[in-house]
Amino acid sequence: MLLARWPSSSAPCLVLSPVIRQLWLLRSSILDLVGEVKASTVFFAEAAAAVLVKESSDFEADSFGYWPLVQSEGGPSSGLKAAAKRQWVPVGQLDAKEGESVWVRGRLQDSRCKGSIAFVTLREGTETVQCVFGDSCSKDLLRWLAAVPAESLIDVWGRIVSPQTPVASTTQRKELQGEKVFCVVKAKKELPFQLKDAMQPEDEQKEGQIRVHLETRLDNRCLDLRVSGTAAVARVTSEVSRYCRDFLHQHGFVEIHTPKIIGGASEGGASCFRVPYFNRDACLAQSPQLYKQMCIAGDMGKVYEIGPVFRAENSNTHRHLCEFVGVDLEMEIKEDFLEAVEVIDNLFKSIFKRLEDSALIRAQHDVPPFVFLEETPRLTFAEGIKMLREAGIGVDTIPEDLAEFDLSTELEKALGRLVQEKYKTDYFFLLKYPAKVRPFYSMPCPNDPKYSNTFDVFMRGEEIASGAQRVHDAGLLRRRCEALGVPLEQLKSYIDAMDLGAPPHAGMGAGLERIVMLYYGLGNIRRVSLFPRDPKRLAP
Amino acid sequence: MLLARWPSSSAPCLVLSPVIRQLWLLRSSILDLVGEVKASTVFFAEAAAAVLVKESSDFEADSFGYWPLVQSEGGPSSGLKAAAKRQWVPVGQLDAKEGESVWVRGRLQDSRCKGSIAFVTLREGTETVQCVFGDSCSKDLLRWLAAVPAESLIDVWGRIVSPQTPVASTTQRKELQGEKVFCVVKAKKELPFQLKDAMQPEDEQKEGQIRVHLETRLDNRCLDLRVSGTAAVARVTSEVSRYCRDFLHQHGFVEIHTPKIIGGASEGGASCFRVPYFNRDACLAQSPQLYKQMCIAGDMGKVYEIGPVFRAENSNTHRHLCEFVGVDLEMEIKEDFLEAVEVIDNLFKSIFKRLEDSALIRAQHDVPPFVFLEETPRLTFAEGIKMLREAGIGVDTIPEDLAEFDLSTELEKALGRLVQEKYKTDYFFLLKYPAKVRPFYSMPCPNDPKYSNTFDVFMRGEEIASGAQRVHDAGLLRRRCEALGVPLEQLKSYIDAMDLGAPPHAGMGAGLERIVMLYYGLGNIRRVSLFPRDPKRLAP
Repeated sequence: MLLARWPSSSAPCLVLSPVIRQLWLLRSSILDLVGEVKASTVFFAEAAAAVLVKESSDFEADSFGYWPLVQSEGGPSSGLKAAAKRQWVPVGQLDAKEGESVWVRGRLQDSRCKGSIAFVTLREGTETVQCVFGDSCSKDLLRWLAAVPAESLIDVWGRIVSPQTPVASTTQRKELQGEKVFCVVKAKKELPFQLKDAMQPEDEQKEGQIRVHLETRLDNRCLDLRVSGTAAVARVTSEVSRYCRDFLHQHGFVEIHTPKIIGGASEGGASCFRVPYFNRDACLAQSPQLYKQMCIAGDMGKVYEIGPVFRAENSNTHRHLCEFVGVDLEMEIKEDFLEAVEVIDNLFKSIFKRLEDSALIRAQHDVPPFVFLEETPRLTFAEGIKMLREAGIGVDTIPEDLAEFDLSTELEKALGRLVQEKYKTDYFFLLKYPAKVRPFYSMPCPNDPKYSNTFDVFMRGEEIASGAQRVHDAGLLRRRCEALGVPLEQLKSYIDAMDLGAPPHAGMGAGLERIVMLYYGLGNIRRVSLFPRDPKRLAP
Repeated sequence: MLLARWPSSSAPCLVLSPVIRQLWLLRSSILDLVGEVKASTVFFAEAAAAVLVKESSDFEADSFGYWPLVQSEGGPSSGLKAAAKRQWVPVGQLDAKEGESVWVRGRLQDSRCKGSIAFVTLREGTETVQCVFGDSCSKDLLRWLAAVPAESLIDVWGRIVSPQTPVASTTQRKELQGEKVFCVVKAKKELPFQLKDAMQPEDEQKEGQIRVHLETRLDNRCLDLRVSGTAAVARVTSEVSRYCRDFLHQHGFVEIHTPKIIGGASEGGASCFRVPYFNRDACLAQSPQLYKQMCIAGDMGKVYEIGPVFRAENSNTHRHLCEFVGVDLEMEIKEDFLEAVEVIDNLFKSIFKRLEDSALIRAQHDVPPFVFLEETPRLTFAEGIKMLREAGIGVDTIPEDLAEFDLSTELEKALGRLVQEKYKTDYFFLLKYPAKVRPFYSMPCPNDPKYSNTFDVFMRGEEIASGAQRVHDAGLLRRRCEALGVPLEQLKSYIDAMDLGAPPHAGMGAGLERIVMLYYGLGNIRRVSLFPRDPKRLAP
């Protein structure tokens, strides 16, 4: 029976008059003659008048319709055990099920009619399959289907067949011959943007193509997450943290969770978010720096944390966020901070080796593949400056005395290009920075206290990590704090911990989003952060 | 040559006069006669006068002394490659190295003299070995060694031997015959508490035993982290998050990192820390609730996050923290929220199966082992109430109409005892709570909207996790918000996401620290959190 009402039972009910129904059936006969048309376009005119809606809650008796709200009715033998009424096959596994009849749930990505056949692209995550509703389906089914809004969630019952020509436009080469189709969740008719537009390459503007700007994507991040390129970036980011954990666990590191609400600034007071804390002042940790060192003083040996860090910096660049995911590690060393450099270098190489080229990402951001060497170039800061000078870069800005000099973003990029030309790698270490441009807890060089036992790690000429041997001697730490004007009272617990005889140690902090951004050349860190936070963005 | 000065080269230098030196040697002869004495006690009297200090930076020529600051001098062929001068063997691997001579670095846990032999317990993490400095060592070495403060970091060169009676007081049964010993980092002489006191069972007070209270431990958390029981808890907590990740990765969950600085309260405004954010108001996420659901609306399928959550609740109980580690997951369901209950049940059982009894923890907290069943009892809220009523518990407090009733902590504990008696398990689920005591985003029961598709998970009668099917229909969500007076404007991004056709989904949030606390019966969540935060504690 055909009913015309809105799917939600609480919405007003519009019953089609017999006349309108005749017009409807006539219209569909005309449609059959028109041949291939975008069903959604043709149907649009009717939408204002009345929407053809059929409801169904019986997948055995019926073959199509809007399904009632999934509210956990429980299986026939329910009790408190999950009893599935149907078996489901993921879209990505359909190619392996030829000849079988299956239930599949996915998004109605798009639908089009060709005579009395409807083609639907069904998407689940980044996997897609073509569903064909043809001879075995009623005209009513086809008409109903054409009115289901794109991005609605549908259940299809059908048989997997091998078409004469394998389907090229979907991830599955086989095809699903649909016999039944139910809409489980109806999407809003007007979406903020169309997925097919958002799936185009982001950097180039094609003729007649609607470009979906980054701001629009971020404002509607949940829809953007359905774009295969964005979904692939989210998945890869998740994988990079897993690769980090795998490596660090194998190398004896223990995961820690340090507090994010802390009494004093961990990296200097200026860029610190303040939090009123039960009538006291607190701030959000700019890094787990002091706490991971305190764990080392507590003899945890090797520790790491992958978690949020907060920077109240008013930086509106492609690579700064006010909240990002820090990958922080700290470890005891026996004799030399290069022991830690070795571990950190191997950590990054282990990530690069497991990361793969992603066709889904490349479809939207086509940049040269990331290259690295088995033997990572390790340059001193002084050697880096020499390379820049010899190339005639920064001659006006680099002073003779490097004691208080640090590289600007531009000089870092220039050095990255020089290193890439000379060594053919997008990845290298720069060691022994001038002591005065590094934090108070950095260990001075043994031979020349103007420099420090510090390093930065670069990918494609951009810094992704900073590290150092730390000052483990409480006396030296106090003297450095006094010399640099760092207030001691806020650091009391930290310096007390060093007084317990902290072992020599070194570590680093990296940014998870930067690693992914630079490996895949995504150009903006906001493409990696799931829900980015910058001075202007606090939603979604 | 004997020198008497402080180890740090910048500290004042006290040269012993010949007379004092004679006295010193005389004193040590007397010591030899006294036999076994706690060296540290006897040496204490001298400490004020002058400390016998020998420095050394040559482990080949010398056999003992204070080592200079480890500042990464670089190996002989250094360049920028780590070149270890010595090979090191971890204390935990010494039993396997019988007959070999090795370098070991560890804490001088305690030292005592017996005639011309010194016994040192050397500790690395939770592993310990007995070092014996005897015949082959000079008297100067023994005297110097006795003055090194407990908890200093020392390097020992010696041979692993099998004593006639295996050593029972350390984790290693073999013994290290020390030949050389250098102090790498000197600990402060006066520690906030003695490790041997802190390693005693926490719940009982032995005669003559100094009890180290929890507050003292937490005030000096870095020292407490060296206590083997505390170290074991820290390691187990790290393992539990790894077990969670392993299970969730195997079951297709993707790790997400959602923002902690958010525009509106995620779980109601009252217990929210406020953060001024570039001239706007923001707050710290009380859970990743809205964001993990938005990821589901973005078709991420199954997601999880293990990260900090913040509660500005003025609760000073054994199980509340203002910042704790949330284990949050959310997943699409096809037909029934029991699909998610199944996954969550299996997640917890997979953790329990991998957790082991810890002798180190048991030595400090001896409670009955945690028991659970292969088939977890799943009771409805109504059934739980029935059990309480039948046992005559809460007759005065439980109303006839349960529509607005929730269990108090006391009733939860009582129910836990009843379930333990009836089913012999410390672990069970309670499902279908009254809708009015659960958040607005909980899905009502299909048959009786007074109840909801919700659940809590209990260990030893305490709640460790809450979960539910969520309302995925934007219309129903709006109506529920309006009915409950939840302001819609703060939830705009969230409800917009549901408008995109979010799939049916369910999930849960658990507390990492609670799982560990209850599994091992630690009695206070502050024993699990590395650096706990409660209304009164913001440091260390």
